[in-house]
Amino acid sequence: MKVREIGEYPLVARLCERLEQVFGVDKRVLVGLGDDAAVLEISGVRLVLTIDTQLENTHFRRSWMPAFDLGWKSVAISISDVVAMGGKPVAALLGLGLTGEEPVAFVDEFYEGAISLCQSTGTLLLGGDTVRSSVGLMVSSVVIGIVEGEPIQRKGAQVGDAIVVTGFVGEASAGFWLLEQNVKDVFSSPLLRRCVERFRRPIPRTNALQIIRSFPVHASIDISDGLVIDAQRMAAASKVQITLDVAQLPLSESLREAARVIGKDALALALTGGEDYELLIAVPSSVAEEFCQAIVGVGIPAHQIGFVSGTHSEGEVLGKNPDGTVSVLRGGFQHF
Amino acid sequence: MKVREIGEYPLVARLCERLEQVFGVDKRVLVGLGDDAAVLEISGVRLVLTIDTQLENTHFRRSWMPAFDLGWKSVAISISDVVAMGGKPVAALLGLGLTGEEPVAFVDEFYEGAISLCQSTGTLLLGGDTVRSSVGLMVSSVVIGIVEGEPIQRKGAQVGDAIVVTGFVGEASAGFWLLEQNVKDVFSSPLLRRCVERFRRPIPRTNALQIIRSFPVHASIDISDGLVIDAQRMAAASKVQITLDVAQLPLSESLREAARVIGKDALALALTGGEDYELLIAVPSSVAEEFCQAIVGVGIPAHQIGFVSGTHSEGEVLGKNPDGTVSVLRGGFQHF
Repeated sequence: MKVREIGEYPLVARLCERLEQVFGVDKRVLVGLGDDAAVLEISGVRLVLTIDTQLENTHFRRSWMPAFDLGWKSVAISISDVVAMGGKPVAALLGLGLTGEEPVAFVDEFYEGAISLCQSTGTLLLGGDTVRSSVGLMVSSVVIGIVEGEPIQRKGAQVGDAIVVTGFVGEASAGFWLLEQNVKDVFSSPLLRRCVERFRRPIPRTNALQIIRSFPVHASIDISDGLVIDAQRMAAASKVQITLDVAQLPLSESLREAARVIGKDALALALTGGEDYELLIAVPSSVAEEFCQAIVGVGIPAHQIGFVSGTHSEGEVLGKNPDGTVSVLRGGFQHF
Repeated sequence: MKVREIGEYPLVARLCERLEQVFGVDKRVLVGLGDDAAVLEISGVRLVLTIDTQLENTHFRRSWMPAFDLGWKSVAISISDVVAMGGKPVAALLGLGLTGEEPVAFVDEFYEGAISLCQSTGTLLLGGDTVRSSVGLMVSSVVIGIVEGEPIQRKGAQVGDAIVVTGFVGEASAGFWLLEQNVKDVFSSPLLRRCVERFRRPIPRTNALQIIRSFPVHASIDISDGLVIDAQRMAAASKVQITLDVAQLPLSESLREAARVIGKDALALALTGGEDYELLIAVPSSVAEEFCQAIVGVGIPAHQIGFVSGTHSEGEVLGKNPDGTVSVLRGGFQHF
């Protein structure tokens, strides 16, 4: 059987199982593969580690991804993973594959983007590896962070929890389509430009960390492949069913305008678009409103969009429609 | 100017300078970019961090690199960097780019190779990221280690030091050419097979760590791009001139036989071949013989092959020929 036939999740699940079998028994591994990042205890320090790879024509096109933004985004998405574990980013490394035909200014701008994002999040950029890639641009980003106390995992959501999301999901995906469809005059419209900016320069939610650590957060995941699929991951890891209240999902004006322009459904983009790098968090319903207000207080939008609806149908995500009907939600990005 | 016009070293030097300017002032950064690995102090723990990228058709061909060996080598070369800093590897992460056309068994074997190397060096494999690569296989490996006491850097070699090398340089490069030239019956010859094995499954010198830390080692670098070029790096960082005694360079029987078969010069392969992942070490001449014996005592070949010959002509590497003449040595692998 080929990789594209087995699919991404079964492939990763096999790998998790095998690594768990070999290395999972080691007491230094607090969280292994299968969460947003691994957590390792060394000499009493809890380190959060994550790696992400961005490839030309898989993740971005050179024609619409400026070098500065590529550098920014490469580090941002790894920092987002660290934050999702309740960790504070400390340092980053980058591996950059270049064809050699790029102007030196491209490399300079790439690093300026990475430096800019690192500085805004208090992360040290330690450098990395530069290699020749005969086949196109390639970036691997590694971020190491520290977590004080218990790491927040995907598992841990329980009955009685509200589901909270930061920011406005769907905008990044709308931005991708605006670029991919080569829509004209995107940058003269503040609404459309916002979507492109959300796609090209995601902002990892480091500013929410202090709030997250001061509330009894049960589970957290960053939304990379789409709200529904990442909610499913949380539900599966937590062995619960999650219900999303579709009417509560915040659809921004930017998303609605972009959806109209690209000819797609705003709600579908919000549910399955991906690349949001927002946080999906399970927190007790009793404190959910206070939690959202505290997140908003540090300048980050936050909305309660659902709840843990039971321990039956583990891993299932339901959508409660405005008309009161309920349906099973599916969809999101898979690599294979 | 394009990347291929400026060349790899000037490109990396620019980058080092810029990152040093922005992040070098931070006291947590003990060693920044420009050495084999970065060293960062977090809560009193000194972490060694490194990232390496292997790309299909740049670093290997699918036709002659078995998946097991690719997994092994990807982790091995990063562990080698950590060891060169005097660090003990603790954990590894892998980023794997696949076209999707690979059999699932390929991925399994890749990870078995990585697991095997990790287990033999006491490194935890924490997992990583699997993405679709439209353009070929891609592996990024990250290894994190700890260093007790002072990290060993490229800089620090001084007048009075002997230059010691582990293993037999040149064999790996000869192995590469045996594969690249598709030489028949390589595996029926133990001598030729050894070269291929040294190329496909380099053994990071973790077993030498205890010896290295118990001697007053002044500088260390792992040989990835070639003996001469990596000696130049040590010489440049240490602001000294290094002289290699060419007659002392150990040329193994395997290397000589492979060189004959592939029609290349054994000495040239040893000096400039690269991919050895052996250690080049500066240690006071007074203890060099004892040092080599101790390394040999843990099962690793070690030879004194040169000395620090002055503080003039910084960064220069001279070759003392068997006939007593001396010439400036050059050459090695550059990505651009």
